[in-house]
Amino acid sequence: MRIGIYGYGNLGKGVEKGIALNPDLELVGVFTRRDPASVKTVTGAPVYSVDQVADFENQIDVMILCGGSATDLPEMTPSLARLFNVVDSFDTHARIPEHFANVDKAAFQTGHTALISGGWDPGLFSLARLYMNAVLPEGRDYTFWGRGVSQGHSDAIRRIPGVKDARQYTVPVAEAVAQVRAGKQPELTTREKHLRECYVVAEEGADLALIEKTIKEMPNYFADYDTTVTFVTQEELTRDHGALPHGGEVIRSGKTSAENSHVLSFSLKLDSNPEFTGSVLLACARAVAKMHGREIFGCHTMFDVAPADLSPLSPEELRKKLL
Amino acid sequence: MRIGIYGYGNLGKGVEKGIALNPDLELVGVFTRRDPASVKTVTGAPVYSVDQVADFENQIDVMILCGGSATDLPEMTPSLARLFNVVDSFDTHARIPEHFANVDKAAFQTGHTALISGGWDPGLFSLARLYMNAVLPEGRDYTFWGRGVSQGHSDAIRRIPGVKDARQYTVPVAEAVAQVRAGKQPELTTREKHLRECYVVAEEGADLALIEKTIKEMPNYFADYDTTVTFVTQEELTRDHGALPHGGEVIRSGKTSAENSHVLSFSLKLDSNPEFTGSVLLACARAVAKMHGREIFGCHTMFDVAPADLSPLSPEELRKKLL
Repeated sequence: MRIGIYGYGNLGKGVEKGIALNPDLELVGVFTRRDPASVKTVTGAPVYSVDQVADFENQIDVMILCGGSATDLPEMTPSLARLFNVVDSFDTHARIPEHFANVDKAAFQTGHTALISGGWDPGLFSLARLYMNAVLPEGRDYTFWGRGVSQGHSDAIRRIPGVKDARQYTVPVAEAVAQVRAGKQPELTTREKHLRECYVVAEEGADLALIEKTIKEMPNYFADYDTTVTFVTQEELTRDHGALPHGGEVIRSGKTSAENSHVLSFSLKLDSNPEFTGSVLLACARAVAKMHGREIFGCHTMFDVAPADLSPLSPEELRKKLL
Repeated sequence: MRIGIYGYGNLGKGVEKGIALNPDLELVGVFTRRDPASVKTVTGAPVYSVDQVADFENQIDVMILCGGSATDLPEMTPSLARLFNVVDSFDTHARIPEHFANVDKAAFQTGHTALISGGWDPGLFSLARLYMNAVLPEGRDYTFWGRGVSQGHSDAIRRIPGVKDARQYTVPVAEAVAQVRAGKQPELTTREKHLRECYVVAEEGADLALIEKTIKEMPNYFADYDTTVTFVTQEELTRDHGALPHGGEVIRSGKTSAENSHVLSFSLKLDSNPEFTGSVLLACARAVAKMHGREIFGCHTMFDVAPADLSPLSPEELRKKLL
């Protein structure tokens, strides 16, 4: 299966590394908006300009789109779905219906297969919520994120005047997780579910008290959370907070009768969010190629993919080894 | 969606109770090999003899087969798949290929849709293994069962001379679970993974030491495990060990690069194994009816079912609420 990577940031690199772990997948190349000569890939894969992409129409089975959800993917995915089968990790929840419709139209018109919102949330966590709701209809589910780095929140801190660099961790509140795991179904406010830990490098002479106040009172991002701000040096930030770990847990508890309750949980503990997300997108790419082979065109999500299609094993092997 | 229940033991009752939680499902009736007049259902659903089942060919959308895997289902599922769309919970691992082939043939020839080996293991745990292997190809997975009642092991104890009644719990070894959750990949023997706790009611005058020795040395069932045997009165067994709890955890840990490891876990804590299994079979029945509507005939497992088909929600609602 011939894979292309479109966009070469952290996620693109994660996809590239993942290909080496899947003997049935082969990387044709990386497409970048930068000057290809300036980009050096992790595994030595060839680099092309996005302007050359149309030349690869018949050389790539699935293109994995590694742009951002805010501005890149809403344009990129429908446009590339006219040339290729595509997979993206679009995660702007409110805009999924619109994005789905745009990609569906482009893919259908040109006989391509697309999968949007792959990854772990949306993605594996969405699947956990779906399966758990289907098999335990009377109940309540909770999603906790972290401990992990939120790039959006880190960026928001970096935009504050006087801030040189920053890293923000989202941390689930241990008591809340314990209650939910025990099968209780508490009403939890935003503040009761997650904490936010910020590590900030300030510019020389900056007003630290003002930076801390600005962070803690920032609407949407921090105001509704218990937030800690710790000032560190650039060296400390690079050394102690250079990785991109993440994870979390989906828990559903409910009843099948007055007497009998059940607790279901799916959790992830990830050393590298982009590498794991890239690895999930590769499994999605495999499914997209299989579905395209069956002429199942248009846009899909992981909800529409038969699990067997994500695997390199045959149905017989899957029944024998994993059922 | 009109559901029938074929076989009315613990699992059949679990399915019956689950129907009340799914507004889109309706119970047509329970079919039993006993005298229908002697069977009283939990919810007051009508009871019919298995001899009448052919009369219901056009009144039931999916028949859920609640027989045992040892002798009932190998006959029952292919035979009923000639009249109905069917779901079973066949769990004799070694015979799955043969059972699948028999059911596939019967269902295909008559234009029916069948799903075998539904439930949680095989079933949800199989799905967890498949998804985890697909998204993290380099790694190792572990399945722990319990703490929960194993009916097969309880039966094996009851067959020992001098034993009046017994209940056996399978218990995962806490240290092994902790190691695996921490991302280590230990080689674990059978003994290192699970313990077996037996609660036994002996007949008056029975040789307790001999019973204990017979249990602990029983090949396949107990000899390879650390086993405890506790003698209790019938009253104690009924009072303290009358429920059928179960559960367990599937864990996979692996790497996406030399530096970065990840741990994935799916766990269940169930007050009632038959009620939860019944609830899973109902979600499978919903998928089977949808697939039959699309003329996808023959035999399937949960590996072949697009997750969305298990849910009563439309694809649009699913994307909006759960993605």
